[in-house]
Amino acid sequence: MFVGGPLQKISPDVVIGEDTYVADFVNLYGCKIGRNCKIGTFVEIQKNAVVGDRCKISSHTFVCEGVIIEDEVFVGHGVVFINDRRPKAATAGGALQNESDWQVRPTRIKKGASIGSGAVIMCDVTIGENALVGAGAVVTKDVPAGAVVVGNPSRVLVKE
Amino acid sequence: MFVGGPLQKISPDVVIGEDTYVADFVNLYGCKIGRNCKIGTFVEIQKNAVVGDRCKISSHTFVCEGVIIEDEVFVGHGVVFINDRRPKAATAGGALQNESDWQVRPTRIKKGASIGSGAVIMCDVTIGENALVGAGAVVTKDVPAGAVVVGNPSRVLVKE
Amino acid sequence: MFVGGPLQKISPDVVIGEDTYVADFVNLYGCKIGRNCKIGTFVEIQKNAVVGDRCKISSHTFVCEGVIIEDEVFVGHGVVFINDRRPKAATAGGALQNESDWQVRPTRIKKGASIGSGAVIMCDVTIGENALVGAGAVVTKDVPAGAVVVGNPSRVLVKE
Repeated sequence: MFVGGPLQKISPDVVIGEDTYVADFVNLYGCKIGRNCKIGTFVEIQKNAVVGDRCKISSHTFVCEGVIIEDEVFVGHGVVFINDRRPKAATAGGALQNESDWQVRPTRIKKGASIGSGAVIMCDVTIGENALVGAGAVVTKDVPAGAVVVGNPSRVLVKE
Repeated sequence: MFVGGPLQKISPDVVIGEDTYVADFVNLYGCKIGRNCKIGTFVEIQKNAVVGDRCKISSHTFVCEGVIIEDEVFVGHGVVFINDRRPKAATAGGALQNESDWQVRPTRIKKGASIGSGAVIMCDVTIGENALVGAGAVVTKDVPAGAVVVGNPSRVLVKE
Repeated sequence: MFVGGPLQKISPDVVIGEDTYVADFVNLYGCKIGRNCKIGTFVEIQKNAVVGDRCKISSHTFVCEGVIIEDEVFVGHGVVFINDRRPKAATAGGALQNESDWQVRPTRIKKGASIGSGAVIMCDVTIGENALVGAGAVVTKDVPAGAVVVGNPSRVLVKE
């Protein structure tokens, strides 16, 4: 059973499954995390993000609203997800944007996929089952099941 | 009005404008941040960096000395700025380098620009008004106003 | 002499040399760090990693098990090291992987090298003496002594 410590920020609305380990220096709010996961140091997971069972979310990674991570997914260190293709700080009228000013775009990481460290995952993307995103790849379109992708922008190196 | 909390490191010389929100797990020193901004989790902003009004500096981002961010700029998650083209840990004589051993190189992000998550911004660069730096781009030269740049090294995808 | 503070996570088995400065918001365990180094904010260094003398490990950087950093090495901000070429969250049997399920692959950074911010360093790699890895580079193979490499994947821009 999970209990937040003095070096963790976990809002009361976070749902965390049994046997899941959460490191210190994390910021979690409004998200759902499954059973038997490991959540590393310096991780932020936003509201409405979902992490399945037996996942690893490694240190320095940011999981934003709109991201659904299925079971048994490995997310490396320093991975960044995205939910807005044209981010702006302010509205045309000069006010700081708030949630009503943009629409969250979805991302789905399917069962058993692995995302290498330092990868950047654009929104409107699905990464297929057991796919491998190479370290440092910038993923801008769907990755087929079982494929290996690398590069910026990422391209398929190995098909299933 | 800003008050530092127990999970924030904000040195007394930081100037923060009204209505600016600063998350926990931040390290801010010697910098100036404008009004009505949002500063995310796991952000470090060094001395002599300047952030304008109505800016968003998202989680996991590092803003170094020499960076001037004008008003209404969006900086995504995990963005890294740079102020030294040839960093070295030690001097030729074998001592750890200190501030007198290098010269800070400048970077300017102009009004209304947006920097996508995971981007790396080399020094001696100006990013023009309302430009968009794509996620994961490595920017090595100036970006024209209104342009969209992507890739490593970044190239112009769309002109204004 | 080093003493851990309330915003640092430093396990008792960490060895830290004299005159080494360690910032707040760090997670260090089972590693060895030499003398006269600077370890920045939001840094994690795992067990069995070694950092030499007079090194700078800048903010937001992750140093994993299997990494040996020799003396006088500069590691920029947001740098990620790797020790597994085919990471998976779970075993074929559906259990969360633990240490017995993979073999740590090594990385060595030789004396006087500099690694630019935002770089990703694949495992099974040696970066030669006084080499410079450009900002945002994704290093997938050995870097010769004195060379400058850039890009994703990185290529040699300047030989010694």
